[in-house]
Amino acid sequence: MSREIYLDNSATTKPYDEVIEYMNDVNRNFYGNPSSLHTKGIEAENLVKRARNQISDSLKVDSKEIVFTSGGTESNNLAILGFLKANPRAGKHIITSEIEHPSVLEVFKQLAKDGYKVDYIPVDNKGVIKLDALENVISSETALLSFMHTNNETGAIQPIDEINKIRKAKCPSAVLHVDAVQAFGKIRIFPKNYEIDLLSISSHKIHGPKGIGALYIRKGIRIKPVLLGGGQEVSLRSGTENVSGICGFGLAAEKIFNDIDANYTHVASIKEYFVQKITESFEDAIINSYDQALPYIINVSFSNLKSEVLLHHLEQKNIYVSTGSACSSNKKTHSYVLKAMGLESKNIDSAIRFSFSASNSIIDIDETIAALKEIIPVISIKRKIKG
Amino acid sequence: MSREIYLDNSATTKPYDEVIEYMNDVNRNFYGNPSSLHTKGIEAENLVKRARNQISDSLKVDSKEIVFTSGGTESNNLAILGFLKANPRAGKHIITSEIEHPSVLEVFKQLAKDGYKVDYIPVDNKGVIKLDALENVISSETALLSFMHTNNETGAIQPIDEINKIRKAKCPSAVLHVDAVQAFGKIRIFPKNYEIDLLSISSHKIHGPKGIGALYIRKGIRIKPVLLGGGQEVSLRSGTENVSGICGFGLAAEKIFNDIDANYTHVASIKEYFVQKITESFEDAIINSYDQALPYIINVSFSNLKSEVLLHHLEQKNIYVSTGSACSSNKKTHSYVLKAMGLESKNIDSAIRFSFSASNSIIDIDETIAALKEIIPVISIKRKIKG
Repeated sequence: MSREIYLDNSATTKPYDEVIEYMNDVNRNFYGNPSSLHTKGIEAENLVKRARNQISDSLKVDSKEIVFTSGGTESNNLAILGFLKANPRAGKHIITSEIEHPSVLEVFKQLAKDGYKVDYIPVDNKGVIKLDALENVISSETALLSFMHTNNETGAIQPIDEINKIRKAKCPSAVLHVDAVQAFGKIRIFPKNYEIDLLSISSHKIHGPKGIGALYIRKGIRIKPVLLGGGQEVSLRSGTENVSGICGFGLAAEKIFNDIDANYTHVASIKEYFVQKITESFEDAIINSYDQALPYIINVSFSNLKSEVLLHHLEQKNIYVSTGSACSSNKKTHSYVLKAMGLESKNIDSAIRFSFSASNSIIDIDETIAALKEIIPVISIKRKIKG
Repeated sequence: MSREIYLDNSATTKPYDEVIEYMNDVNRNFYGNPSSLHTKGIEAENLVKRARNQISDSLKVDSKEIVFTSGGTESNNLAILGFLKANPRAGKHIITSEIEHPSVLEVFKQLAKDGYKVDYIPVDNKGVIKLDALENVISSETALLSFMHTNNETGAIQPIDEINKIRKAKCPSAVLHVDAVQAFGKIRIFPKNYEIDLLSISSHKIHGPKGIGALYIRKGIRIKPVLLGGGQEVSLRSGTENVSGICGFGLAAEKIFNDIDANYTHVASIKEYFVQKITESFEDAIINSYDQALPYIINVSFSNLKSEVLLHHLEQKNIYVSTGSACSSNKKTHSYVLKAMGLESKNIDSAIRFSFSASNSIIDIDETIAALKEIIPVISIKRKIKG
């Protein structure tokens, strides 16, 4: 079989070898419970502290502002539910967008049932939220805004700076939560620059282990825990710390931030080359990611085929891509993100997400294009009908 | 320095080498997202399935009855909050004991604030709940009972069978949740035998990784998720699965259940030897764990010293024990478990928990006893005053 070409890095990434080795070492030699009073506990506690510093350094925040969670989903839940639980008088209006991750959207749906007034801001055909729509709905009653930094299906970067300006003008007391799961480690997001109050990040999107994430909570923002118990993570997230996971996450963050500019340049060149080749090779192909989207993600519709069929043909050539996102366990749902962008149904059905990492190469792209050239004529619906 | 003697296995355990190696392999070679449609996703999904079977086999339940969580704390939270959220008309009365883990007690405190009538069943001087007290408070209004199988500080085994009989006689509709975090992998607990509806277990207490646990949910019991999002774990626990953690947990469960009887016999003999040596060597020592407690845990008060001082002297000899439990990040709280048992303050202050695993040996005990003989006369309060 040909070598593996993994172009599904927005679903999850291959952990760095150094991260795996470090976790190995932690599990083998530093297995104490950080809550234990003895050296083995303190050693483990110090490892957690070091990882917390690695994360806070990468965000240029104070390490006290970082709470470890079990992943991006828990971070998003804790940010939104935790803030609203702690601030019942902050207002009964909350705002998000139509293209958020399910771990935001499902929480909003629940809150709507619980009596919150919820507004979902629509997006334009680039997949960027409509700022005028936000301006129209935000009011002094608004308690919380939750917007993703980078969309997981298209790479569309949301105008966090503009969102913040609108917030400050219209409702400065509203809290701004940013789901930065897809952006963290790919571009620099310093919460302080955008006056972000709460920011969610995840380890397995940056070559760290699965099952670990973090929430940045700006000093002064009060939140209540979702998980109650022994009071770990300054009582905001109870449960024995996942020490090796936390360590792996910290190291992955440090590594990826060390190379962030070189990675970006490399991936941007790969993406540019990919778009050029796609455009040259497939006249029906439509690039759904707009030019200024994060280059790590490129969403393409091939019009006359079913994306799932293409995905399975590609995997037979050891090339791994995605239809929509892998965020939902219900794998066959129609992409609500592309729908919100106004794509026609046939373009949604034929959309493929290619998502890159720094370890992808131009050769990966050449081989993927070659594979697409072989597969697409065979599986396209038109040809089938012509038979 | 002398070799390490780890007697704090109820705080956390050293992961099995095979578990570490397996996780290593999973992180390196099977890094797909189980929600991905392609082979790499399906491979990961199959690994999760295998681990789920390992867990369900060890409990003799259906694999569909197992939901993976981020640990014992989340399992306890999900069991109690999830059941009550899904069954608002089940009644407004809930019952637990005074000696539960904080991840149960804190949830009950919160529920009391939310309007639930809460009863905390007291324990006798053995640390076993008073069944007559349960009989007195249980009523047709009772929605849920939550009792631990084995207490984490004393090893006291709770009469789950009797609790179930009382439930059936007085309020058969009440749901029975059992926190089996300390018991799982040490003695066989088959939820079906005791008609347990919800059962919490954790990986890092059985030589698996930290940051992973599971909740058994009897078929037919409706619960609502605490974490909302992509709908993983049949919508009961959203978030990308911690695949390597789940795999490590599954293997640890399989391994420990393969040896469960041999382990028990070995640890029981260690405990018996330890108690005999303690009794012979320290006339002031009081064994707080009753005879029929789980032999994996033995709680001893040394009367005339501060347990924390003894702990630190022991760690200087590379011997690791615990004062109370390591379940709380607030490390210096007075043991509410020993207090509930009616211990005098001085005996609570001087209590040490020794908790064993199958890898401890008689030599560990001999060396610990020798160390105690050296340390105790030096640190005992009486001597200091005399001195």
